[in-house]
Amino acid sequence: MELNEAVAKLKEKNKKLAAYYHAMGVMYYDIETAAPKNAIGGFSDTMAALSEITYKLEVNEENFELLDFLSAHADELDEITRREVEQAQNGLKLLRNVPMEEYVEYQRIQSEASAVWHEAKVKNDYAMFEPHLKKLVEYNIKFAKYAAPEKDPYDYWLNEFEEGFTQDVLDGYFDKVKAALVPLIHKICEKEKPDDSFIYKFYPIDKQRELSQYLMDVIGINKDDCSIGETEHPFTTGFNKHDLRITTHYYENALTYSMYSVIHEGGHATYEMGNCDELTGSPLFGGASCGMHESQSRFYENIIGRSKAFCELVFPRIKEIFPEQLKDVDAEKFYRAVNLAQPSLVRTESDELTYSLHVLIRYEIEKKLMHGELDTKDLPAEWNRLYKEYLGVDVPSDKEGCLQDSHWSGGSFGYFPSYSLGSAYGAQILAHMNKELDMDALIASGNIGKITEWLREHIHKYGQIKKPAELIRICCGEDFDPDYYIDYLTEKFTKLYEL
Amino acid sequence: MELNEAVAKLKEKNKKLAAYYHAMGVMYYDIETAAPKNAIGGFSDTMAALSEITYKLEVNEENFELLDFLSAHADELDEITRREVEQAQNGLKLLRNVPMEEYVEYQRIQSEASAVWHEAKVKNDYAMFEPHLKKLVEYNIKFAKYAAPEKDPYDYWLNEFEEGFTQDVLDGYFDKVKAALVPLIHKICEKEKPDDSFIYKFYPIDKQRELSQYLMDVIGINKDDCSIGETEHPFTTGFNKHDLRITTHYYENALTYSMYSVIHEGGHATYEMGNCDELTGSPLFGGASCGMHESQSRFYENIIGRSKAFCELVFPRIKEIFPEQLKDVDAEKFYRAVNLAQPSLVRTESDELTYSLHVLIRYEIEKKLMHGELDTKDLPAEWNRLYKEYLGVDVPSDKEGCLQDSHWSGGSFGYFPSYSLGSAYGAQILAHMNKELDMDALIASGNIGKITEWLREHIHKYGQIKKPAELIRICCGEDFDPDYYIDYLTEKFTKLYEL
Repeated sequence: MELNEAVAKLKEKNKKLAAYYHAMGVMYYDIETAAPKNAIGGFSDTMAALSEITYKLEVNEENFELLDFLSAHADELDEITRREVEQAQNGLKLLRNVPMEEYVEYQRIQSEASAVWHEAKVKNDYAMFEPHLKKLVEYNIKFAKYAAPEKDPYDYWLNEFEEGFTQDVLDGYFDKVKAALVPLIHKICEKEKPDDSFIYKFYPIDKQRELSQYLMDVIGINKDDCSIGETEHPFTTGFNKHDLRITTHYYENALTYSMYSVIHEGGHATYEMGNCDELTGSPLFGGASCGMHESQSRFYENIIGRSKAFCELVFPRIKEIFPEQLKDVDAEKFYRAVNLAQPSLVRTESDELTYSLHVLIRYEIEKKLMHGELDTKDLPAEWNRLYKEYLGVDVPSDKEGCLQDSHWSGGSFGYFPSYSLGSAYGAQILAHMNKELDMDALIASGNIGKITEWLREHIHKYGQIKKPAELIRICCGEDFDPDYYIDYLTEKFTKLYEL
Repeated sequence: MELNEAVAKLKEKNKKLAAYYHAMGVMYYDIETAAPKNAIGGFSDTMAALSEITYKLEVNEENFELLDFLSAHADELDEITRREVEQAQNGLKLLRNVPMEEYVEYQRIQSEASAVWHEAKVKNDYAMFEPHLKKLVEYNIKFAKYAAPEKDPYDYWLNEFEEGFTQDVLDGYFDKVKAALVPLIHKICEKEKPDDSFIYKFYPIDKQRELSQYLMDVIGINKDDCSIGETEHPFTTGFNKHDLRITTHYYENALTYSMYSVIHEGGHATYEMGNCDELTGSPLFGGASCGMHESQSRFYENIIGRSKAFCELVFPRIKEIFPEQLKDVDAEKFYRAVNLAQPSLVRTESDELTYSLHVLIRYEIEKKLMHGELDTKDLPAEWNRLYKEYLGVDVPSDKEGCLQDSHWSGGSFGYFPSYSLGSAYGAQILAHMNKELDMDALIASGNIGKITEWLREHIHKYGQIKKPAELIRICCGEDFDPDYYIDYLTEKFTKLYEL
């Protein structure tokens, strides 16, 4: 095989896959935002049929040979093609090493577990879910061994979600998080809680829609490239830099839920809109990792969106839209309310300060599960013990406890740390950005575009060309360093709560 | 080849095609209702890639052989499979008979013509479009000869859109339409125009959305099976009987535009929701023909929706939603306003009475074009002459004249008659339904479900299993007969205008 011929074959396959993934992505967006409820049956059938086709495009001897050939000539490839090959090889590691019958069996177990989890959560019945979870854990350990026999299984899975990260790095990271945040949160709990009752007044949805349009403008989203939909659990999806979709959910009695979900999802969209043109149609379009994607969404949501300067910038307009509801509120009061920090039960509803402790708990549990040090039967007790120890809260039921997240039921172990790493990346990026830009002044003057420009140049343009750790080095000129995150939170919340 | 093996192959291919068409259908729905403006580039690329794949699935020797084999054994097939084969053969007639290079050249001409037409319409410049139209006409005549050398070319194209219909039938039909409607419209023009000014007051869009939800309930659409989206030009699309999408467009200053588009599109959706279960995943899912589909949408829109009983049924709720705007209006006044009949320039904005004359004009022109009896250079003059003669209006510009529709620019000749046939089918169906049901009483009591049930049993359940003329025979026990349509319009408008 000639090299240029092999590259052409790869690009041809990528082009086909891009078309399928685009169509499947639009179908997913549609089912979550627009389709009628009963569309789900036909949707599942078609997604299964299309998945089978994409599966066959990737999982065949000819493709394996093609990728092996290209891997052997990696040095002669341009950077994008080389990374495309590396990523494709990574993606096939499991499929090439796990015996087919075990892989198929696992798919069955996974979809069964997912269905049972939904029911178990509603019924608050962990015992019902436990045998399924047990099997998922066993398979994940076994599969990690097939794919990378030289690795600790949890390290294998961590690397799948955040390439380059291991327990070594994460143990050090979470130790610091724990040491700094647990006492900080304890101190805050002793202070008076700021008044946030105005957030829960009645805010008509059509007015909230108007606010969303304004917020998209403020953070600089070109609406010709990005639309907004409505869904149950907000998410973002993107097909190319000129076709992004953010979503939100409006609650009539919670002003800031939709507001910050728009800014958060807007951050995800901004990341992908900033990919360089060369990534259009490439499988490298998107974000470097789950954690890096989350770093950008949280950058917009928390670092920008929950800053004092931002609250001062947008509050007048918010008050204009809701004059009655906010008649006794000013920007300062608003700022304090949206930064209220308090221990809670549910990760997805937790605040900027306590968030990483929720993740830490999951990390510790996953580590033990992957090492056979925790029986799935004992998981609820361990969960509740850790919530009490780190967050000081009593878990009243498993549905608000260890059954709350969908990840494990879908067979994902090792995903959670990315959520927390995202915030830590963000704080480190901020520290370096502040050497070149006056963030507060830019926000105060509504010039968020300048911040986005900086992020585009240092992070967004690379898409998935670089791995997360590489990106941090490119952006900050140093390795990942959790101290920035600890310092950022300590400073922000010490000041806010006058500790 | 064994027959059951061949049938299995056909079904396997149909299943794949259904998945592709489903995905492409959702992408189309999405681009028209939800996607950001700049998504169009990526959308076009992906649609082209998927079209190429479906094309290859159908246009290959193996498939031709399969279909020929199944056609030869048609007698041994069940009705659905037999019709699937027949339809697939019809669909391939052109592709199998037109030399590939001419077919490709035509695709190029077509997409060029379409782009030029858009510009020509904006610029009101027919001369710019004329050479493209000329080529399209030539190719359509030539292609018809390739596909069916024994047929008159216009008969070939008419049959493509409305299987079983020829100029013989349509000449007779349109002669009657012309003879009855032209004098009727003249008489109406001499009467005083009912007051419809209230329709053009300010109607806030969120309130119109509320009205749409109510109207979907009234006509009996299960919202778990059918959602509503917003778009520029309303359309309906459906993927299976549990996943239909209607769309509408809200104008702040036109109450009834969206209202009747919801009922019209709701009629299309109701048709497909009524398909029998056996058609799920079959290419026969949908409506028997363009005309039959239009018969159902217009049945709901005009025969039900513009009846006095319906106006009386829904007006109280409409007035509840818009008490200020409608304070001086009653159901009778509303009924008269939504049935205002008057000659106009634009087909898509024309009323129930004058509609078929717009179609007649296009029919006469197409016939001449397909027979070489009208040079495309002389088309505007002929268009304007016919509008003056039949509708009594002077056409002030080609953009409001012969450039108004997109059909010819897309290479469609023979589609227009279906629009008018739909109304005629509807009137004939109504006459037979009235023998069994008391339509007015059912509507008055809000029992539209009974009407839908009747239509489902006589029309909807068959999907595309039966051809339109067969359906009329099944439903009415007689051949298509245009007199019902003439009688229906004459009676309705004579009464309304007290002629």
